[in-house]
Amino acid sequence: MPANPGHGDLTSFGDRLADRVATRRSQIVLGLDPDPARLWPEAIRRAEAAGDAGAPAATRAARAVAVHCALAIEATAEECVAVKPQVACFERLGAAGWIALAETVALARERGLIVIADAKRGDVDVTAAAYAQAFLGETPSPFGPIEGLGADAMTVNPLLGRDSLEPFVTTARAHGRGLFVLVRTSNPGAADVQERALADGSAVSDHLADLVADVGAPGVGHSDLSDVGAVVGATAPERLAALRERMPHAVFLLPGVGAQGGNVEDLEPAFANGPAGGLISASRGIVAAHERAGGDPAAAAAREARRLRELAWRLAA
Amino acid sequence: MPANPGHGDLTSFGDRLADRVATRRSQIVLGLDPDPARLWPEAIRRAEAAGDAGAPAATRAARAVAVHCALAIEATAEECVAVKPQVACFERLGAAGWIALAETVALARERGLIVIADAKRGDVDVTAAAYAQAFLGETPSPFGPIEGLGADAMTVNPLLGRDSLEPFVTTARAHGRGLFVLVRTSNPGAADVQERALADGSAVSDHLADLVADVGAPGVGHSDLSDVGAVVGATAPERLAALRERMPHAVFLLPGVGAQGGNVEDLEPAFANGPAGGLISASRGIVAAHERAGGDPAAAAAREARRLRELAWRLAA
Repeated sequence: MPANPGHGDLTSFGDRLADRVATRRSQIVLGLDPDPARLWPEAIRRAEAAGDAGAPAATRAARAVAVHCALAIEATAEECVAVKPQVACFERLGAAGWIALAETVALARERGLIVIADAKRGDVDVTAAAYAQAFLGETPSPFGPIEGLGADAMTVNPLLGRDSLEPFVTTARAHGRGLFVLVRTSNPGAADVQERALADGSAVSDHLADLVADVGAPGVGHSDLSDVGAVVGATAPERLAALRERMPHAVFLLPGVGAQGGNVEDLEPAFANGPAGGLISASRGIVAAHERAGGDPAAAAAREARRLRELAWRLAA
Repeated sequence: MPANPGHGDLTSFGDRLADRVATRRSQIVLGLDPDPARLWPEAIRRAEAAGDAGAPAATRAARAVAVHCALAIEATAEECVAVKPQVACFERLGAAGWIALAETVALARERGLIVIADAKRGDVDVTAAAYAQAFLGETPSPFGPIEGLGADAMTVNPLLGRDSLEPFVTTARAHGRGLFVLVRTSNPGAADVQERALADGSAVSDHLADLVADVGAPGVGHSDLSDVGAVVGATAPERLAALRERMPHAVFLLPGVGAQGGNVEDLEPAFANGPAGGLISASRGIVAAHERAGGDPAAAAAREARRLRELAWRLAA
């Protein structure tokens, strides 16, 4: 039986990711959280050289943000398997920011990188379907279909329950795309709700993990990986083994290495289902490496991405 | 002691809302969830008459969406106190959709309506701060400050815990804006996570309610209403009284009347803290009223908004 019945030869997200990790020998995800006040100086210079000094601040800042992201991608693409643009950072620049986001997505895909839109969307079914159209699919209209952002995957928030995840799963699966559902995030406040004890003795995050495994089961490909993965913070390594047991086929997206205090060395249980079972995401850790190490931002970013890549690859081998 | 110490004469969101509800004698929120495939025919006609037949589908659809929203606002503004644009429905049209959203927000504010951006955002602190800038504040940049969307309030998702809510609260409070935190949503799947029993016998939603009350306490104004409200589905009236007890100062945003099966008559406990304690949101119930009642969409929408307004006002009196 084909892994993706009903979708012809469309490769499932899990299989596509497994293949890409094997080819690129990397599990590193470049997180792009551009803050207009902390861009690489070269991005500001190039944006200023573009000669649109009379344009609105949002247009100029969005131009600089797009250049900054392009420089970061060019510097580190060889060391990474994916990029994770943080949608908030583009959205705060309005329509101009959305254009910068679309350009960043297109460039990353050109460079052979998987694009994970870090959107953390979640809503009632009809609205969840609209978000899925925005990031992974397309929207029918009387003027013709409107292409979405074209991300390979996106992060989603499961607080609204199973029926709020299903439209994301349907759209993702139909397009060979993937999801990463928030299960145990990397921030200290994750304990407030996600780690609260339920009446049956498990934690809320355990219950979310079961939900992920369940909606992901029909999307497990030849690689044994599902198209529905989970966000599991690298800052909570003590939870990794238990969550891996509940979600044997999920790809874990692991943020929180570096600035937030997580260590690659602690993430071994994530790779129990193979080298593509864990994706290690670093944002400021890579892009702001020059602030700690000094020197050229691009060179410092490439060095840090390479260091993380080698650490992770050894761990998963 | 002033209700809003440190912010000069800036009126708190709760006070501003209480004043607006009293002046307009309405607790009705017009939900705007525009689907390009289900717009009012007049919106399509006007968008086609704009003569941009050569423009991309997204531009033309976004134009039609903006006209549709403008027509719905003009038809019902007198009966409503607020509008609630569903961000997903604009975002799926990309940059052009963001422009349509900004136009919709500006028009609603011109008509004296409170604007609640239904965004359901939630993320780690630095990202939450970026979303708050996008919807309620502004973003500093080397090219000057970039204005956000300018909404009066937005919906946020608390799954990531207290530290993920704090940046939203800080930005909202500094700008006299408000938040509506998801506590008990209107969809059937809400039971999966939000109504799960915790070890202490309460439900997850009870715990979220306590969190809302806590972060909202410093934002309670003269009106006794806080700048941090809660989303509580009109489809779960049996939970209203208990949640009101846990959140005595919160404004309840009550979606789910009409298409989702909620009844205005069941919502009395929401108004225990005054006429502005509950905001009744209806989207398809108002905008698609003509699909049930026949006739002109604008007239049918106005009639339905008036009916809901009168029902709610009697209840809260």
